[in-house]
Amino acid sequence: MSVRLAEIVARFGGTIGGPADLLVGAGDTLINGIAPLEQARSGDLAFLANPKYRHQLSTTQASVVIMSTPADDYRALSIFVPQPYLYFARVAAWMHPMAPVVPGCHSSAIVEGDVDAGASVGANAWVGRGARIEKGAAIGANCSVAEGVCIGSDTRLFANVTVYANCVIGARAIIHSGVVIGGDGFGYARESDGSWLKIPQVGRVVIGDDVEIGAGTTIDRGAMADTLIEDGVKLDNQIQVAHNVRIGEHTAIAGCVGIAGSTVIGKRCTIAGAAMLAGHLQICDDVNISAGTLVAKSINRAGTYTGGVPFLEHSNWLKNFSKLRHLDAMADKIRILEQRLAELERKST
Amino acid sequence: MSVRLAEIVARFGGTIGGPADLLVGAGDTLINGIAPLEQARSGDLAFLANPKYRHQLSTTQASVVIMSTPADDYRALSIFVPQPYLYFARVAAWMHPMAPVVPGCHSSAIVEGDVDAGASVGANAWVGRGARIEKGAAIGANCSVAEGVCIGSDTRLFANVTVYANCVIGARAIIHSGVVIGGDGFGYARESDGSWLKIPQVGRVVIGDDVEIGAGTTIDRGAMADTLIEDGVKLDNQIQVAHNVRIGEHTAIAGCVGIAGSTVIGKRCTIAGAAMLAGHLQICDDVNISAGTLVAKSINRAGTYTGGVPFLEHSNWLKNFSKLRHLDAMADKIRILEQRLAELERKST
Amino acid sequence: MSVRLAEIVARFGGTIGGPADLLVGAGDTLINGIAPLEQARSGDLAFLANPKYRHQLSTTQASVVIMSTPADDYRALSIFVPQPYLYFARVAAWMHPMAPVVPGCHSSAIVEGDVDAGASVGANAWVGRGARIEKGAAIGANCSVAEGVCIGSDTRLFANVTVYANCVIGARAIIHSGVVIGGDGFGYARESDGSWLKIPQVGRVVIGDDVEIGAGTTIDRGAMADTLIEDGVKLDNQIQVAHNVRIGEHTAIAGCVGIAGSTVIGKRCTIAGAAMLAGHLQICDDVNISAGTLVAKSINRAGTYTGGVPFLEHSNWLKNFSKLRHLDAMADKIRILEQRLAELERKST
Repeated sequence: MSVRLAEIVARFGGTIGGPADLLVGAGDTLINGIAPLEQARSGDLAFLANPKYRHQLSTTQASVVIMSTPADDYRALSIFVPQPYLYFARVAAWMHPMAPVVPGCHSSAIVEGDVDAGASVGANAWVGRGARIEKGAAIGANCSVAEGVCIGSDTRLFANVTVYANCVIGARAIIHSGVVIGGDGFGYARESDGSWLKIPQVGRVVIGDDVEIGAGTTIDRGAMADTLIEDGVKLDNQIQVAHNVRIGEHTAIAGCVGIAGSTVIGKRCTIAGAAMLAGHLQICDDVNISAGTLVAKSINRAGTYTGGVPFLEHSNWLKNFSKLRHLDAMADKIRILEQRLAELERKST
Repeated sequence: MSVRLAEIVARFGGTIGGPADLLVGAGDTLINGIAPLEQARSGDLAFLANPKYRHQLSTTQASVVIMSTPADDYRALSIFVPQPYLYFARVAAWMHPMAPVVPGCHSSAIVEGDVDAGASVGANAWVGRGARIEKGAAIGANCSVAEGVCIGSDTRLFANVTVYANCVIGARAIIHSGVVIGGDGFGYARESDGSWLKIPQVGRVVIGDDVEIGAGTTIDRGAMADTLIEDGVKLDNQIQVAHNVRIGEHTAIAGCVGIAGSTVIGKRCTIAGAAMLAGHLQICDDVNISAGTLVAKSINRAGTYTGGVPFLEHSNWLKNFSKLRHLDAMADKIRILEQRLAELERKST
Repeated sequence: MSVRLAEIVARFGGTIGGPADLLVGAGDTLINGIAPLEQARSGDLAFLANPKYRHQLSTTQASVVIMSTPADDYRALSIFVPQPYLYFARVAAWMHPMAPVVPGCHSSAIVEGDVDAGASVGANAWVGRGARIEKGAAIGANCSVAEGVCIGSDTRLFANVTVYANCVIGARAIIHSGVVIGGDGFGYARESDGSWLKIPQVGRVVIGDDVEIGAGTTIDRGAMADTLIEDGVKLDNQIQVAHNVRIGEHTAIAGCVGIAGSTVIGKRCTIAGAAMLAGHLQICDDVNISAGTLVAKSINRAGTYTGGVPFLEHSNWLKNFSKLRHLDAMADKIRILEQRLAELERKST
């Protein structure tokens, strides 16, 4: 897809800028693709959002760069807009739409449920009895969609996705390969001999509209009530969502995060990679959790919360982190020093 | 399934209690399902195990609540038993049995091994040459069960499970989707040029009876000897079990835990979410490891072990955690203060 | 496979040693398999590389042990070599070669791409349009190899691997089950209402030669440029590699590691289990990162870096780790003590 710069600006707004000699006929500049500043070639559209990368403007080969303010050392065309990254996202999404769904079920697919004529089911996929695949939805190769599942319109399951019985996925979701939705939650009662009695997990997973779920993420069904993923939630890869968790609208969670059972996360939160949330917590709206944070208590005030530990060169780490075992003793020593010093001060006056 | 309260008590024991006006005919109360206290409706059976949720008794709509002692502000029927959660588990398991296996191989399944007439193999699954599927076992859709594998009686593999050649799974196991059993362990010798020479991984994974394995968990085959998962072990989702690990009977491990190679874990241990165990460790019986703990040394005494780090509001974290790099210097300062103060004290007497 | 000791030494070098009475005819000793020292039986070849296991020599039943120096309490045959583990790896690889690929596509496989006559495709696998499977490559059962993918010669995909469209895997790679290559990276721009606009992920994953990827690992495609895994890289299980990451030659990464977007890792690095790397970092060549380390800054000097936290018996942890919230206050107290003490010292002189 090749488009004229004028067409982009007509569609998405913004102001074309550049050196006077380039502005004549600038609207006819052909954009063939998008690329990062550093790797862009002639014909590419790039963007500058983070001032940290401003120095790349002097050497970029991009034909046009989306940015918020003019830059002295940049000599080619710009689109000036207040939010370059958001603008870039819109242009990129328009230039690279998802491939259209080609309706129909592959001859090797086993379809025992109800697939809309406008939906597609890929090679060797299985759609169980009572399942319903809505219009425009696409089930990838080797997917397993169990009995009674409902997949909303225009939702895409890439290859090798598994959805357990009776789970519900809304419209326009994107579910990546290796995702497992609706496995049993981890619930047992302990017998007196130490063995474990399984609690049947009879809830479902219910996923809203416009949700994306990254490769290898697992979301367990509820024990009795449902596990809930609200509209617009974005989950990265290899996230573990335990039974009866609820994730609020437009919350975004990065890779390798784990969320233990029954924890409720508010709307518009962001959780960075490898954070781990204990069970039965309440996290309010608009909370940001930093990477690698172990969240063991509820959070009831919006803000940013952090618990990651700095790393050190190994020998330096040995000296410092061994002291973690002696922090209580150190605090005691300080208190005793304070007492002894106060005594001396009293005497000396 | 709808059951009378009297039938539950006849089968599982316990004492029916309640306000005098409800006790007449209480045994005929119909129980239609199980539910959490907070979400229960009329006809539901709920339970109170954790005193933290006692306040929910005053508003629950449950028809009957399993509990250990009477509660003032609760006005409906109870079953009094010493261990409400265990009792609930038994009733729930009885009311919600797993769906029976319908014997037979789906016409799209590729069965090259030996499947008992009382077992089932799902759509597009593959059972390799020399594999043996015992009576009552169920292999889900799109599963891959490689050559020489043995799957014990009444064991269930949900869809999309992979078992590598020659691995063994006992009876009554439940293996969830996305699980990979028997992949190669991570073993290499380093060549002088920095490249890695693969050590063939010729051991197996051998799994006992009554084991449950959660979605996305991976268990590597042994390098030379076998990786062993003993009877009654329960593994949650996205756990990584490296080669030659041994996990003792009735040990339960929560999600996102990693266990490095050759570590041996005792019986009846519990390991909470996201704990990470280094390799070649010995963890004795009855050890509890808390969430997010990095276990880098063997543990030879039963008890609870913890290493998780508290989180803080971000600006507070910045001030405090930066000091982790200076703990050694702080300890030095304290020692010097003690020496100087002792000197002063000596002088002042 | 049974081999004479003399044949091993003729092929791989080393010196046969042992008690005088065993040396006659030692070269004719038959080796039937490899085993760890502790579990070896007569006919097995074992090795001693880590001095920690030296005590096992006195009781091992192995017929021959590879080691670097003679041991007093060992009474059977040895192969003396400078690097026992590397030598063992070579012998083991020779005695246990991978099963040869049997060329051909299973009748249930859906092959829409181009499969070399010397390659194989397993049961119920799918190879999409425009994909190319080179000579000697093997695609396991239930794999999904999407449109335009290229799989190099002699590369093996075990069952249930997913490769998204247009990704490239080099020669002699080993890709384990549950791996997902080429899923969309986690990229969104935030709208003013808090919702997320997806950035199309139009880069690929490009993987070099001689790479091994463990079960359940996920590697996302690049946003605009490609995600790159260079020759000889070894990845363990359940690793998450985000978009636009680059991993240098012969770097080895253990299980449960996460690498956030655009981070570049040098050559010959080792990253131990559960380490987490933030995004947009540069890690230079020959860096070793210890287990459980959160790497939040770039590293530009070769060496070993560590950030793991020690664990404690729980009551001891409670006392010590609670102080992490007061480190700043402790440092303040120490500074004030130093000032007050200096004042007293001044007075007392």
